[in-house]
Amino acid sequence: MSADLFAVSSLYADYGFFADGGRYEEWLALFAKDCSYQVMPKENFDRGLPAALIFCDSRGMLEDRIQTLQVASKYNIHTDRHIIGTPRITAAGSDSLLAEAPFSVFQTEQEGETRLFATGLYRDRLVRNGSGLKISQKLVLLDTFSIPSLLATPL
Amino acid sequence: MSADLFAVSSLYADYGFFADGGRYEEWLALFAKDCSYQVMPKENFDRGLPAALIFCDSRGMLEDRIQTLQVASKYNIHTDRHIIGTPRITAAGSDSLLAEAPFSVFQTEQEGETRLFATGLYRDRLVRNGSGLKISQKLVLLDTFSIPSLLATPL
Amino acid sequence: MSADLFAVSSLYADYGFFADGGRYEEWLALFAKDCSYQVMPKENFDRGLPAALIFCDSRGMLEDRIQTLQVASKYNIHTDRHIIGTPRITAAGSDSLLAEAPFSVFQTEQEGETRLFATGLYRDRLVRNGSGLKISQKLVLLDTFSIPSLLATPL
Repeated sequence: MSADLFAVSSLYADYGFFADGGRYEEWLALFAKDCSYQVMPKENFDRGLPAALIFCDSRGMLEDRIQTLQVASKYNIHTDRHIIGTPRITAAGSDSLLAEAPFSVFQTEQEGETRLFATGLYRDRLVRNGSGLKISQKLVLLDTFSIPSLLATPL
Repeated sequence: MSADLFAVSSLYADYGFFADGGRYEEWLALFAKDCSYQVMPKENFDRGLPAALIFCDSRGMLEDRIQTLQVASKYNIHTDRHIIGTPRITAAGSDSLLAEAPFSVFQTEQEGETRLFATGLYRDRLVRNGSGLKISQKLVLLDTFSIPSLLATPL
Repeated sequence: MSADLFAVSSLYADYGFFADGGRYEEWLALFAKDCSYQVMPKENFDRGLPAALIFCDSRGMLEDRIQTLQVASKYNIHTDRHIIGTPRITAAGSDSLLAEAPFSVFQTEQEGETRLFATGLYRDRLVRNGSGLKISQKLVLLDTFSIPSLLATPL
């Protein structure tokens, strides 16, 4: 269990680092071939309402989204900073495990102001991949149903 | 020492997770039978002034407080998100150990706005309990003497 | 690698703790005899522009800066709180290693208000020192080129 927690913790560190550094190819490589990525208000999730703010249910969709980000984004130029708390493993099997971690994301816009952007909880299914882990289902539960500005870069 | 730090880190992860998820029974179960829970401005602590904002000096008092929260709270409805930094162990004995960790708490209110609520330092006595740890004395040192709104949910 | 990550993580925990507690002698002791400490906007670093907001290229300079802080600072009295994310080791040799960690710093001023002060990334060279590590090059990359108030206490 301790080795698993160590691997999960490293995966989340890489996840935040690649997202914040705009290194999206490496960020994508953290996902399994079959994967999904969803951003949803916690409120919806708690009530069993399936509507998501972002729902990529295949690797292709996620790649497409990242492509858009790299090529087309001309507005809301900013940089992100993820501060991710210690993860918890809630279930561990021989092929996969379920993990959670609280997160905060701060954004700095072109004028130089840094603001809190969002807080929430990751609830992820991770699959074993050699000695490491890949993300097979990423669920980003936002604490708010109302994020303050455009949701462009990955949470 | 490394195994201890691992256990402390897991305990803090659970602590924040159960508090933020409103899972107060499980949150209470992280405390030892004999326990205390105190919230105090750092300023008071540094000057040796004993006044606390919240002082529960028995498990019963803490349970009572949580009961109130679950039954009576109708105002200031919000959700919390703890982001807790890496803990440090400052003393370790055969029965108990002293640990510290910096924390930040963000609140999201009903309108959907997420704000920084408080930052500070945990200074806790933890007791060994089989292979795990329980909280025997929880001291929440707030960086400010003036928290911006009602202090209802546990820090 | 796992033992290294453990040591890096502990070093960062101590770093934030001593800085926030105003325990500057112990904070200084985390640095190697030959060391540098630099604070720079990420933007400058990414473009290869060498201008730093703070640049101490010797231990003496760093001690001098801390001395100033302890003796002369009468304005902008505040306390800091570092919340540092999980570090990543990007290179590890027999003598030294390179490590990164995202950080957020919150400040509480005399009126009691706590605010986000800065976010960014540490990019550090750490040298092995017996069973532990010391900081030989500390590079604090700020997410903004424009920090909201005086940069006095160490980031």
